[in-house]
Amino acid sequence: MKLPLHGSNPQYVYEAFNLPLPEEVLDFSVNLNPFGSPYTLHAQWDRLFPLVEDYPDPDGTSLRSLIAREVNLPVASFLLGNGGAELISCIAHMLSGKRVLIVQPTFSEYDKMCRAHGCDVSYIHLTEGVWKLDVSTMIDQLEHADALFLCHPNNPTGVLYSHHELSKLLNACEKYNCLLIIDEAFYDFVPKNITFAHEVSKSKHLVIIRSLTKMYAIAGLRLGYMLADPKLIKYVQSFQPEWSVNALALEAGQICMRDQSHVNKAQSYITTERKRLFRQLKHLGFTLSNSYVNYYLLRDPTLNKQDSLIYWLLERRIVPRHTYNFPGLDGRWIRLAIKRQIDNDMLLEALRQWKEI
Amino acid sequence: MKLPLHGSNPQYVYEAFNLPLPEEVLDFSVNLNPFGSPYTLHAQWDRLFPLVEDYPDPDGTSLRSLIAREVNLPVASFLLGNGGAELISCIAHMLSGKRVLIVQPTFSEYDKMCRAHGCDVSYIHLTEGVWKLDVSTMIDQLEHADALFLCHPNNPTGVLYSHHELSKLLNACEKYNCLLIIDEAFYDFVPKNITFAHEVSKSKHLVIIRSLTKMYAIAGLRLGYMLADPKLIKYVQSFQPEWSVNALALEAGQICMRDQSHVNKAQSYITTERKRLFRQLKHLGFTLSNSYVNYYLLRDPTLNKQDSLIYWLLERRIVPRHTYNFPGLDGRWIRLAIKRQIDNDMLLEALRQWKEI
Repeated sequence: MKLPLHGSNPQYVYEAFNLPLPEEVLDFSVNLNPFGSPYTLHAQWDRLFPLVEDYPDPDGTSLRSLIAREVNLPVASFLLGNGGAELISCIAHMLSGKRVLIVQPTFSEYDKMCRAHGCDVSYIHLTEGVWKLDVSTMIDQLEHADALFLCHPNNPTGVLYSHHELSKLLNACEKYNCLLIIDEAFYDFVPKNITFAHEVSKSKHLVIIRSLTKMYAIAGLRLGYMLADPKLIKYVQSFQPEWSVNALALEAGQICMRDQSHVNKAQSYITTERKRLFRQLKHLGFTLSNSYVNYYLLRDPTLNKQDSLIYWLLERRIVPRHTYNFPGLDGRWIRLAIKRQIDNDMLLEALRQWKEI
Repeated sequence: MKLPLHGSNPQYVYEAFNLPLPEEVLDFSVNLNPFGSPYTLHAQWDRLFPLVEDYPDPDGTSLRSLIAREVNLPVASFLLGNGGAELISCIAHMLSGKRVLIVQPTFSEYDKMCRAHGCDVSYIHLTEGVWKLDVSTMIDQLEHADALFLCHPNNPTGVLYSHHELSKLLNACEKYNCLLIIDEAFYDFVPKNITFAHEVSKSKHLVIIRSLTKMYAIAGLRLGYMLADPKLIKYVQSFQPEWSVNALALEAGQICMRDQSHVNKAQSYITTERKRLFRQLKHLGFTLSNSYVNYYLLRDPTLNKQDSLIYWLLERRIVPRHTYNFPGLDGRWIRLAIKRQIDNDMLLEALRQWKEI
């Protein structure tokens, strides 16, 4: 069975499970804002057409300046990317031949791109079910590493790490001359301030990657950025093709970032809806990850691999994300997004029926 | 003076020449179809909005299949890219540490990306003013090279090379185990069939790069593809970030490729308009490159560097492309696009006045 590497594009998971693709599905495999993109973007769509017809600004000056003001760091500390994925690839390129640690289970692109660029990759495995960061026991490994990839909040668990542990980790990275790369793709789904971005001005050993495609549901356009010391930014940029960020993404990014109400609305909805869902799912006997964001891990504790549950859901037009390519999960969990209430209720109903068979 | 590396985005050339940016300019520095993008794309723009809100198909299956049918090669011979520029970068990556030849003067990204990826780059210089390919004298150099970049029709000269010379070149590349990379970004502006794409099925030493952004004026969306032996395609793809081609480009590419009338109209207009322009420009005493496409090189033979002419045009809201970063041109020429008649007439008028001072 050739399972897809990522969520979204449900045709590939139906193909892998040898099931016909229904005309309409509820895609819980993709972690985007359930409210979609900001209305302000849709409202301006017509006006954006002329952007198609000329080259993007290769420096993305307007958007970079806007982000710089927002994050309160100099423009030279930023690099825009064709989605976070491109920045991960450029960073992996910079690390060619180096020793890279990845905290698992996590987003599979760190591993894939580091291996493609000839890095010597090792994993740090967090304890299944808890997935807490224990820096004291990690420190020995840092001594022999050039870089460490950490996703925070983590994808696919949704777990948060404490500020204290992250600070200890950064200190250890400073000491051992190891680059700490924190992927904050989902940081803005958490109502409280958990970012480490402000530390970039103090440390040459810290890189932050962010995405605008999750909160603003513009995954089709591709847009992300990274923050780091200006020298490192310049080096990473040297591997980036010209006009990497398309003209629509550059403009949409600005429209989206000006709509703070969209963020507030999503944060507050997700927090409430996650509580409601988790109460009911636990009541049905499912085990869940301690998620603080818009997705979570779920397992039926009566099964080891969850394939039969995946199959059951797919047959009911509900698309979960398998976890076979997350080392340390290996199919024992499924990942589900938090969608609109009406969709989540359909999921709950299907899972209730599953428990009744 | 820090000159921009490419055409388009005229703000940067005005900045370099220390001139205020006019509210409106006629941008002759950008080589796109003067008719813009196909009307069919504009007409469907509203329908495309939902594509923004979900991940692109990472395999671009529909568009790849359409191109494969069009070019009559198997799907596995194709790789889509975030513009031709991304494919150039991925190919350069594959050539890391290798000896690369570049036929100059040409598009500057081959050189930039090969150097960024640590290639050992040398140039083959074509004779200024003629820019003909003389394979017999190139063969000695091929023996000591791993790859050769050739742009055909060439950017920035617009010159065509004979099928006979190209065949000789490919044969020599086969003999010396050298990869021949032909960038056909502008091949579809030439009415007669000049592509080497069909040779890909016969040779493991040939790579063709193409762009959809020039003919279809969708440079803001970024879309290109490459053709090569399936094994090489797979290797190059391993360096490509996930979801590299955005969802709008994937869809727009299909809409554009179905509009053959757009291509025919551009080809026939460009051919006629180039003749008209060249007659008048020669009459005014300018020297021109023997272009077969939608741009050409021009120089005032009474000057060496053309800076004063560039300045004069910029002051009149007409934006030429400088040639300082084309080795072998070094500012002795300017590149101009063929735009709509009304725009070309404004250019002619400005150049007439220039000759009168």
